[in-house]
This record gives sequence, C-alpha cells and structure tokens, in this order.
Amino acid sequence: MGAFKMRGASNAILSLSDEERNKGVVTHSSGNFAQALSLAAKKVGIPAYIVMPKNAPEVKKNAVRTYQGQIIECDSTPIARENMAEVVRKEKGATFIHPSNDDQVIYGQGTAAMELLEDYPDLDYLFTPVGGGGLIAGTALAANYFSEHCKVIGGEPENADDAYRSLLSGNIEHNETADTIADGLRTFLGNRNFPIIKKYVERIITVSEKEIIEAMKLIWERMKIVIEPSSAVAFAALLKQKDDFKNKKVGIIISGGNVDVNNLPF
Amino acid sequence: MGAFKMRGASNAILSLSDEERNKGVVTHSSGNFAQALSLAAKKVGIPAYIVMPKNAPEVKKNAVRTYQGQIIECDSTPIARENMAEVVRKEKGATFIHPSNDDQVIYGQGTAAMELLEDYPDLDYLFTPVGGGGLIAGTALAANYFSEHCKVIGGEPENADDAYRSLLSGNIEHNETADTIADGLRTFLGNRNFPIIKKYVERIITVSEKEIIEAMKLIWERMKIVIEPSSAVAFAALLKQKDDFKNKKVGIIISGGNVDVNNLPF
Repeated sequence: MGAFKMRGASNAILSLSDEERNKGVVTHSSGNFAQALSLAAKKVGIPAYIVMPKNAPEVKKNAVRTYQGQIIECDSTPIARENMAEVVRKEKGATFIHPSNDDQVIYGQGTAAMELLEDYPDLDYLFTPVGGGGLIAGTALAANYFSEHCKVIGGEPENADDAYRSLLSGNIEHNETADTIADGLRTFLGNRNFPIIKKYVERIITVSEKEIIEAMKLIWERMKIVIEPSSAVAFAALLKQKDDFKNKKVGIIISGGNVDVNNLPF
Repeated sequence: MGAFKMRGASNAILSLSDEERNKGVVTHSSGNFAQALSLAAKKVGIPAYIVMPKNAPEVKKNAVRTYQGQIIECDSTPIARENMAEVVRKEKGATFIHPSNDDQVIYGQGTAAMELLEDYPDLDYLFTPVGGGGLIAGTALAANYFSEHCKVIGGEPENADDAYRSLLSGNIEHNETADTIADGLRTFLGNRNFPIIKKYVERIITVSEKEIIEAMKLIWERMKIVIEPSSAVAFAALLKQKDDFKNKKVGIIISGGNVDVNNLPF
C-alpha cells in the first residue's frame, strides 16, 4: 500500500495465534497505519477495527474503507481514541495493535533496514524519520543485529522535536504543539520503542519546515519519486549535516507518498 | 540519466570501432538524447558534439554541459540542424548518431522491453509512446524475437499523430504543427525505424491533451513516480481503449521525468 507501515501491520497480525487472529485486530490511527492494518487483515480474511477521529478527512476514511477496514469514530483527543479502542477490544475480543509502540510492529518495520543491509552490508549510516518511533526502533535493531558497524540516525521536524528532547532528557517527552508539514511525525515515543531508541540510536537531527520542503523537492526532481513531507525528513537531516558524513556510505529509508498533487508546498 | 535514451546512445557508442570511437560522436537533439549521448560518451572518455538550436532553453543546455557534451548552436529549423551536424561530422571526423533513426540506437532502446519480457515472459501486449520511432521499433523487435505472442501498441498525441497517419498511408507522414504537451513526441519517423514499425507494430492509439495529463496525474498519485507528459502517453492510450485489453497481461514502457515541479499541468 505504498508505505513501510505495511511491514509492521503484517508482522503483528501474522504473530497472533489462530484463535486471536480470528477475532480481528483494532488500532487507533488516521494515517498510513490505519490503511496498512486494514489491508493486512483483509489479506488473511479477518476484521480490522479502525478507531478514527470524527473529523478525520474523508479521503483518509475512504482509503481505509477501500481495504475493508471497519471505522469506529471517536472524539479528536488522545484519551478519547484510547478509550474507544479499549471498548472495541473488549466488545469484539479483538487484539489491540498500536501503530508504533508494539514489539511485533517494531520488528516488522525493521525489515526495511534488514533488506537494505542485505543488499549493502557495508553501510556506515542509516537515516530514518522519527514519528511514533516504530520505524527507527526497528531500524536500530536491524542495524545492530544485521550489520558490522552501521549507525542509525533519526531526522525529526524542529516543530515536533519530542524524540530529540527525549534522548536529551532520558524520558519520553511530548510536543506542546506540532505544527509541521510532516504530518506523520506529530506523534510521540512509547515505552516499548523508547528503550531501544535510547540504546541503539546514535543521534537525532532536527530540521526546519523549509529544509523538509527543499529535501522533498530534490527527491522529486532527481530521483523522480513522489514522497510526502514526513518521508523527506530523513534526507533533510542528512543534507543539513552533510559535512559530518563525507566519504561515508549512507542509506536512507524513504517511504510514504500521500500527497495532494494539486496542492504542493513548492 | 533517467530516460531510455541512455540505452540507445550507449549501444551506438559501444558498437563503434576503436578508431571511430576515438574521434567522438555528433547528434542533433535538444532533449533527453542530447544528455544521453553526452553521458554515454563521457563514460568511455570520448567527445560528444551536440547540435542544438540557439533558442533551446538554458536548462537543457546546462544539462548537456553537466555531462560534458560540447554544444554547437544552429538556427531552429530541421535543415539548419542537419547541415550543422554534417559540418561537425566532417570537421571532427565524428560519427553521426541520429536520436531515433539509427539501427544501433533502435536495438539499444529495445533492451527495455527485452528486460521486461525476461521478467514477464507471458505479456500479451506492450505499450510504448511514439515520437521519433526508436523506442517503439526497438520494442517491436524485442517482442518479436523474445516473446511468444506479445503484441506492441503505440500511444501518440492526437496533436502530433504523424506515426498514426504513417501506418494508415504506408509512407512516412509529417506534422504540420505539433502543439502537444508531450514535447518529446513532436518528431517524426525515419527510413530505418518505419519499416520495422510497419511490419511489427499492431496498432497506434492517439490520445488528447486532456487524456495525457490525466494519465500522468494518475501515475504520480498511484505509482508515486514523477513522469513527464511524453512518458504518460502510452498509459493514456491503454486507459482510453481499456475495454480492448480486459483480462490481458499488459506491460507499459514508462521513461522520462523532465518536469518543472513548480509548473504542473494539473
């Protein structure tokens, strides 16, 4: 479905017992994970219950419906969506799968880096964006177990720099506001992925909105790939600090192309 | 360099004798072939002389210079550019390589279809855009020699439908005007590629400007690939006549992403 979230969603569903699996899965997400879990569930013929805020854009609801996800609406607050997911979990007996703070999701997201390292075993650095922390935690595990010396670096918007501050303070920090064009990275870390990030991630580099948009445009123009702003953040981080990585072999995880081509930021 | 022209340019240069090769190559082109021949020549360390109209956009001249092509300017008529290429050929002893009407260029362009057929040997149809005829002729040869039953179909703009009319009349036709957004397809066929096209191409389907733009947008949105209008024409042709290809295995050659992302047609 065009984004790395499919890896984590599939791995989480395939890790369930038959009995668990048949009762379905539930998550709260209005982004790519909602679509990914719906499609992964559809592929094995089980229901996916997707808790979404009432005011989520119709285009995102339709994408979930395309993959036969069953939408349950809730108020637009973190507590409301967690409560609603818990109601659904109890009522349907479905297994709750968090979009980023779930071991099997983390392992699934790590397969992108694992495959990249199979093709390029001598990478010195691997860059990923940091949102909820699932991708960077999985990538860090993959680099630790499947490479000799590859270090993992995160890119994060200055305007949603919770992970950057979390690594500094040693505790999970939150964003007061998260006014960034990289709308997939407005979330915060969790108790499953933060310990992995703390242990294995080398550094997080924050970037401005302008730097995100410039990096996105460069990838469109040179690599001819339509990527969304959240996906450009890792490359923006590398561009910003490029002198630190001269003569190094650098990989970048690029994933996610939800863009309204009639309304581009450049 | 991001377009199939690199295949034909490389094959043409690699087919020269050492003696010929060392004197360099000359072509007339202001498009992707100018860049492709420059890069292919650079790779083997020989000069490429590129005849371009004085009024060619600076961005296209710069792209050629990036690949160390040597630009020779001429007036903006077909006769002026042919005369200038002939002058350069004589002066430098360089070999003239036509962008589309050259056997080795045709064979090189055919390798895209050859590789696709290696991966998908059971294709029923292969669609390509039709401009100067090099790509579709090479594709038709590849389908004839490397597949059981794959038929080749061309997509062409209604506003530059010279190849469509050429197949009808049996002679090489020209465009009075060629006012199409698919600026790579304004050229006409030649005496080397037309006999191949006449013999092996099943059909040419013409499409409107609106259909080209819609097909281009759909590929951006769903496949997340930045392609230029000329590259979308083959897919536009398939969309237009989709009922004819129901339940068939269809391949499409998509190549070329020269787009000003600040000035999109949608």
